[in-house]
Amino acid sequence: MGKQNLTLLTDFYELTMMQGYYNNKNNEIVIFDVFYRENPSGSGYAICAGLEQVIDYIKELSFVKDDIEYLRSLNIFNEDFLSYLENFQFTGDIYAVPEGTVVFPMEPLVKVIAPIMEAQLIETALLNIINHQSLIATKASRVCYAAAGDPVMEFGLRRAQGPDAGTLGARAAVIGGCIGTSNVLSAKLYDVPALGTHAHSWIMSFDDEISAFRKYAEIYPLNTTLLVDTYDTLRSGVPNAIKVFEELRAAGKMPQRYGIRLDSGDLAYLSKKARKMLDAAGFTDATITASSDLDEYLIDSLKAQGAKINSWGVGTKLITSKDCPSFGGVYKLAAIQKNGIFIPKIKLSENQWKITNPGNKKIIRVYEKESGKVKADLIALADEEFSPENPLLLFDPLATWKKTYLEPNTYTLRELLVPIFLKGKCVYTSPSVMEIRDYCAKEQDSLWDEVRRLINPHIVYVDLSVRLYRMKTDLLDSLAEQTSKSTGK
Amino acid sequence: MGKQNLTLLTDFYELTMMQGYYNNKNNEIVIFDVFYRENPSGSGYAICAGLEQVIDYIKELSFVKDDIEYLRSLNIFNEDFLSYLENFQFTGDIYAVPEGTVVFPMEPLVKVIAPIMEAQLIETALLNIINHQSLIATKASRVCYAAAGDPVMEFGLRRAQGPDAGTLGARAAVIGGCIGTSNVLSAKLYDVPALGTHAHSWIMSFDDEISAFRKYAEIYPLNTTLLVDTYDTLRSGVPNAIKVFEELRAAGKMPQRYGIRLDSGDLAYLSKKARKMLDAAGFTDATITASSDLDEYLIDSLKAQGAKINSWGVGTKLITSKDCPSFGGVYKLAAIQKNGIFIPKIKLSENQWKITNPGNKKIIRVYEKESGKVKADLIALADEEFSPENPLLLFDPLATWKKTYLEPNTYTLRELLVPIFLKGKCVYTSPSVMEIRDYCAKEQDSLWDEVRRLINPHIVYVDLSVRLYRMKTDLLDSLAEQTSKSTGK
Repeated sequence: MGKQNLTLLTDFYELTMMQGYYNNKNNEIVIFDVFYRENPSGSGYAICAGLEQVIDYIKELSFVKDDIEYLRSLNIFNEDFLSYLENFQFTGDIYAVPEGTVVFPMEPLVKVIAPIMEAQLIETALLNIINHQSLIATKASRVCYAAAGDPVMEFGLRRAQGPDAGTLGARAAVIGGCIGTSNVLSAKLYDVPALGTHAHSWIMSFDDEISAFRKYAEIYPLNTTLLVDTYDTLRSGVPNAIKVFEELRAAGKMPQRYGIRLDSGDLAYLSKKARKMLDAAGFTDATITASSDLDEYLIDSLKAQGAKINSWGVGTKLITSKDCPSFGGVYKLAAIQKNGIFIPKIKLSENQWKITNPGNKKIIRVYEKESGKVKADLIALADEEFSPENPLLLFDPLATWKKTYLEPNTYTLRELLVPIFLKGKCVYTSPSVMEIRDYCAKEQDSLWDEVRRLINPHIVYVDLSVRLYRMKTDLLDSLAEQTSKSTGK
Repeated sequence: MGKQNLTLLTDFYELTMMQGYYNNKNNEIVIFDVFYRENPSGSGYAICAGLEQVIDYIKELSFVKDDIEYLRSLNIFNEDFLSYLENFQFTGDIYAVPEGTVVFPMEPLVKVIAPIMEAQLIETALLNIINHQSLIATKASRVCYAAAGDPVMEFGLRRAQGPDAGTLGARAAVIGGCIGTSNVLSAKLYDVPALGTHAHSWIMSFDDEISAFRKYAEIYPLNTTLLVDTYDTLRSGVPNAIKVFEELRAAGKMPQRYGIRLDSGDLAYLSKKARKMLDAAGFTDATITASSDLDEYLIDSLKAQGAKINSWGVGTKLITSKDCPSFGGVYKLAAIQKNGIFIPKIKLSENQWKITNPGNKKIIRVYEKESGKVKADLIALADEEFSPENPLLLFDPLATWKKTYLEPNTYTLRELLVPIFLKGKCVYTSPSVMEIRDYCAKEQDSLWDEVRRLINPHIVYVDLSVRLYRMKTDLLDSLAEQTSKSTGK
């Protein structure tokens, strides 16, 4: 069985607008940017993810007969337009930031250059996919940062917002740093490790706890992790686990990896007690896994209290990004081509920082040469050239008196947007998820530790080039003039 | 294209446990209950949803060749077990509460009676589906309650946690009370209204706002809703919309439904001003739709301030249930059959209220005869009989001195669980989503207004029958004895 065709995964107004453009014979080439305005969970950065699924979606875009019949049945679309849809395919260009890249607010993560009817259709699915996976990858990155090198396993499928949220969410969680997932479908689809051992029901289906432990150790001799909190963690679970480990040791059958899992109670207290009991019995290399309503804040706090946990299973609060369950990516018109030239467009707002950046843009990442750490990002026009052999002016677009000059040869530059589709043809091959995970780890290493702090992190500046800044202020001036004219005020 | 086969949509430990049971030749009939412990968002109730997708999932359960090969590649499953999986199908019984039913904590929403290997496999997908849709249906019910009869449209696809979260979430939102969704795929799949008009980009793609409005009105003469906040709501958007409505009126082409949509700014202030401007021009029946980061609390607050909004588009905060993005449904073993008799099982916890209810159970809803409103729910053993001609004792299972006697013939009773699968065969036909929506509206009407209050609602009691209560306390006593014996304390 294949996947659901997602061509109709769009907002109804995209189709009504498309028909409007069709009837109006208006299908100019436009530029739309996907960007977001605020990092989720108070983070100092986000991790971009979901591009592979965007690529699949664009490649498979096609209104099948059934879709057309459904649209016809709504009695709002005319036959000419429906015929156009029957032959629909994406013919434009798409540029995007590779998955796993560290990104910041206001940067175009995806740039679509296409006839307006095509660019409009794909808005909703693009946002849905990028918003979801970037949200979970960012959350996972924070959770793994708190775990400070301990392995983190994604365990959230049962509480995810539907099958895709579990499966694509696990994919994103691995990109962000998890070592694998309990979700078998995701493990299969994205070739990432499938992880997990047994549940309370395993224990309860036996007459007593130790029989359940013995049987489990017998069947899974390579990795024996025993869940110790079904009846009484310290009085029953841990002593029974130790008894089984002792039996295995006596029989010369010690598992390569073994340990216990705590799933309830106070994890700091229980892990310290359990560690002492295990150590006293000579099981100093037994792993203590914890898995009870964890997130980056609780892991950080448990670590600060010296909890003896060295493996983490994180479920609900990671797979739903519980404290911030949406990523605010938007899709805004940046330019319209007239007579072969892109006319920049801007969307006003009462909030200065919500005003969009016009024109055909690119992102330049500026690294400090000495440390290799990210100094700032620069949003510039696509045809601007920069060289690290020149001095570079950085200034805050909302407070232009905040200026920094970088001396020549003290910094390096990198362009973040790469071509994904050109004239409708895919020109990009997605790396494997585990490769993206490695790349993402390097990306996170390029951040100062201050930017990764879980609470109130240092903010990386995202500046505008001088040319882009001027284009934007000129447009704002002329729009203000136009509005007061049209209302006669 | 069909849907993804979801057979592997399970936690890895379900499969390792299954192999454990297989090797142990232990495949006894067991009973598992799906229930939850706390209503989401501080609600006084929840709406159960997702059953139709559970049914589809169970019907389609089957390990295809590709799945088996994948599992074999993990080098943890033996060939005997893999052959068993190749022939796997669900052979058990499932009882469930119909979709759209009002439910309360601790009640078995789904009851699975099946060989333990089958019951274990389906745990994760059942929870994933029921948790997600019940969460969103409950949220939608609250949002619609706040809207107090105004239509509420589901607009959240772009911020949903992946494609399914958008599509199945929209289904659940309609069950909870929304009149339709912007998500075309969901509208098609579940036969619910597709809704929406146009975006800011439509306006920006024209030389000026009024040309964009005129063209839109020309193309969509039946329902002309104009988005008025692209440039300046009160100085440009509303005056231009009024101008277009005046032109249509002059031409005798007034749309059947028409109005404006506000998508930013202060909705109370803008809607009152816009209402006055529309009324002054004679457009007293123009709809004012609002759609900017809404949820039940903001709608309630806007209503309290006399905002002149009579149609609501609700996105992010509904489709993610932003203030509470997970529904805590769990799946717990309640009994194991030995020699044809169900032996009740219980899961201990340090928290009294987290201890599970053992045995084969049913839910009896008790209505006050006079008002038809829900008085309480009673969890009883499946073979218990109750008649409204007898007096009925209700008591709080955590504070047994809190007792109520209902007089004979002052109450009516209804059993909530209905058979869905019997011996692996589906015996239930799901109603259409719009039928479920109607049923759900009646269900919500059966609640006292005090239970529907958005904040700090009255709590409906969920009591245990005397027999179930005794079974539970007896089990707890014997378990406590057993634990102290096994640890020698």
